[in-house]
Amino acid sequence: MKPILFTRGVPAVESFPAEELAEAAATALARQGPALLQYGPSPGLPFLREWLAEWQGVAPEQVLTGNGSLQLLEFLCLVLVRPGDVVVTEAPTYDRTLTLLRRHGAEPVGVPLEADGPNIEAFEQAVRKRAPRFVYLIPDFQNPSGATCSGAKRRRIAALAEELGLLLVEDAPYRALRYRGEEEPTLFKLAPGRTLHMSSFSKLIGPGPRLGFMLGPSELIARLAKAAEDTYISPANLAHGIAYEWCRCGRLPAQIERLKALYAPRLEACLSALAAHMPEARATRPEGGFFLSVTLPEGIDNAAVRAAAERRQLQLSDGRAFFPNGGGERFLRLPYCALTPAEIEEGVQRLADSVHDLERAGSAQLASK
Amino acid sequence: MKPILFTRGVPAVESFPAEELAEAAATALARQGPALLQYGPSPGLPFLREWLAEWQGVAPEQVLTGNGSLQLLEFLCLVLVRPGDVVVTEAPTYDRTLTLLRRHGAEPVGVPLEADGPNIEAFEQAVRKRAPRFVYLIPDFQNPSGATCSGAKRRRIAALAEELGLLLVEDAPYRALRYRGEEEPTLFKLAPGRTLHMSSFSKLIGPGPRLGFMLGPSELIARLAKAAEDTYISPANLAHGIAYEWCRCGRLPAQIERLKALYAPRLEACLSALAAHMPEARATRPEGGFFLSVTLPEGIDNAAVRAAAERRQLQLSDGRAFFPNGGGERFLRLPYCALTPAEIEEGVQRLADSVHDLERAGSAQLASK
Repeated sequence: MKPILFTRGVPAVESFPAEELAEAAATALARQGPALLQYGPSPGLPFLREWLAEWQGVAPEQVLTGNGSLQLLEFLCLVLVRPGDVVVTEAPTYDRTLTLLRRHGAEPVGVPLEADGPNIEAFEQAVRKRAPRFVYLIPDFQNPSGATCSGAKRRRIAALAEELGLLLVEDAPYRALRYRGEEEPTLFKLAPGRTLHMSSFSKLIGPGPRLGFMLGPSELIARLAKAAEDTYISPANLAHGIAYEWCRCGRLPAQIERLKALYAPRLEACLSALAAHMPEARATRPEGGFFLSVTLPEGIDNAAVRAAAERRQLQLSDGRAFFPNGGGERFLRLPYCALTPAEIEEGVQRLADSVHDLERAGSAQLASK
Repeated sequence: MKPILFTRGVPAVESFPAEELAEAAATALARQGPALLQYGPSPGLPFLREWLAEWQGVAPEQVLTGNGSLQLLEFLCLVLVRPGDVVVTEAPTYDRTLTLLRRHGAEPVGVPLEADGPNIEAFEQAVRKRAPRFVYLIPDFQNPSGATCSGAKRRRIAALAEELGLLLVEDAPYRALRYRGEEEPTLFKLAPGRTLHMSSFSKLIGPGPRLGFMLGPSELIARLAKAAEDTYISPANLAHGIAYEWCRCGRLPAQIERLKALYAPRLEACLSALAAHMPEARATRPEGGFFLSVTLPEGIDNAAVRAAAERRQLQLSDGRAFFPNGGGERFLRLPYCALTPAEIEEGVQRLADSVHDLERAGSAQLASK
């Protein structure tokens, strides 16, 4: 039986524009060889910052590029976070962010996430009572849940940020990958002076160029750039220059369309398979991105399902890792982008079999009591 | 008057093998596209680690690659250093290392550097009395002084490391660039179980690929790789894969020969200009690398020379920045690699004029008293 990995939120290798990047590499090295190969300014290649600024509708000084967006979050923590600081997140949230926050001694405080974004009463209570150093949110096609924050909740969060002087960190690497429905405004748009907007080319070109970027107030961006300089002098200019050249040639829009055409059927395959094999499962219905999530039936926990699934050559993530303050025993993240529709169908079938086995075992145990 | 920058230790742009890298990029993306563009293991691309291991005569598990060697030092600090820890360095030493150590709350303790390496009595006293978390040394063509540690001192340092259980961090990015004289064994060779050896392709290919690497005991390398994963998931695989392909094609030896042919005359130009224009200056006589250093005449300090030089469009670094515990008022680093012999001659002339002006002003002042 072929192993199926429902574990990592990685892009599909068949989505990588390898030939276009080879062409871009040749052009970029011919046009800008010295800039790509020498040390450079720590916020990134000036022409890349300008291109990103134009694309995103900000000034170049508001753009920080770096080696993946996680590292940019690391710089933010270096500059702002002191041990004991509170950072408000969604619960569940991106597990690597939790690891990073904890490494800096921060206390992540999770706000329950609903299908349309964080529970807004709990959010308000958390930000009013806990005076967080910052708030970390993934409003679009959230990792790990797949939920997208509604416009109404975004506006409320932005208003609270203005009222309380909060710093919002909006992590939006999946935002361009909307398969259906209407886009909501970013928090950065709604509260530009209060928001750091993070994104990345990892889900657009591929993770290999390690091109993440952050948009925000220029003074804060300059402080983060100093932390970057003290950490690695300059970012990965060779790779970033190649990505820039690829963007400059106008490749991005067609690539985004290709990604949507590749991934939308995978999301559909996942939803259909869940409907067919686990009609009782409560699943999110994302409108884009990389993930959907399932709440397991009561009495069935993540650890037991993972063990049962492993016997069927199906690998699942531990849902508890996404919850900052405990919980998640019945939470299951299903990243569908790197699997073919056939693998997704087979994977969900194995998942359903694993869950149903556990349910039968549970009933038998109850009956024998 | 054209400005001359004796400030940064950067390679010459004309040394960058841009065309060879464009070719390597095309081949690498065709051969290994998915590995270069996907997330990968945090210690680096497996085939790159294997190539480095073979080159350096170690096992692949002993190799950690990262986005420049400074970032690898950051991981070491993350894993080992706690506020208040002592780290023994040379005095002077690489200023960015001092910044990084201080960011982690370490106390750098400098051992006076001599023409043939650290003063060994002071070194022994420091490591015996201060129980350093680690010892940071640049034995070959040291930054900023240009000094190379003698074989005898290396063996004494290695013996002390064994006796006292010290961890030696050997930063050796210039080692391959020896223009004359005989190579001494690395500390890693003399005390393999006690040494982390760091190097980089920044001075061989160029800084743009951000390819640094560290060799050391595999258990420690694994701990650093975890810190790397928590910081940026994977290193800059696209750029590292291109550098790998360039190495795999056997480009490195010829490139090193080209670099020596380019840089050796620049070192000679610098030494000749100093002999001609500042015969009274005490300068190091490096056998390779990027830097030489000058001790200014007594009574002439760095800040005054920098101001006088600036009026002549000559930029100099503040020598004090290289000294962990004060001093360096008369220390001047001269990085010669990124300047042509004519620029070096002109730069040293301007430096001599600046110093002599100050000397005359000083004599006049004394005479008028």
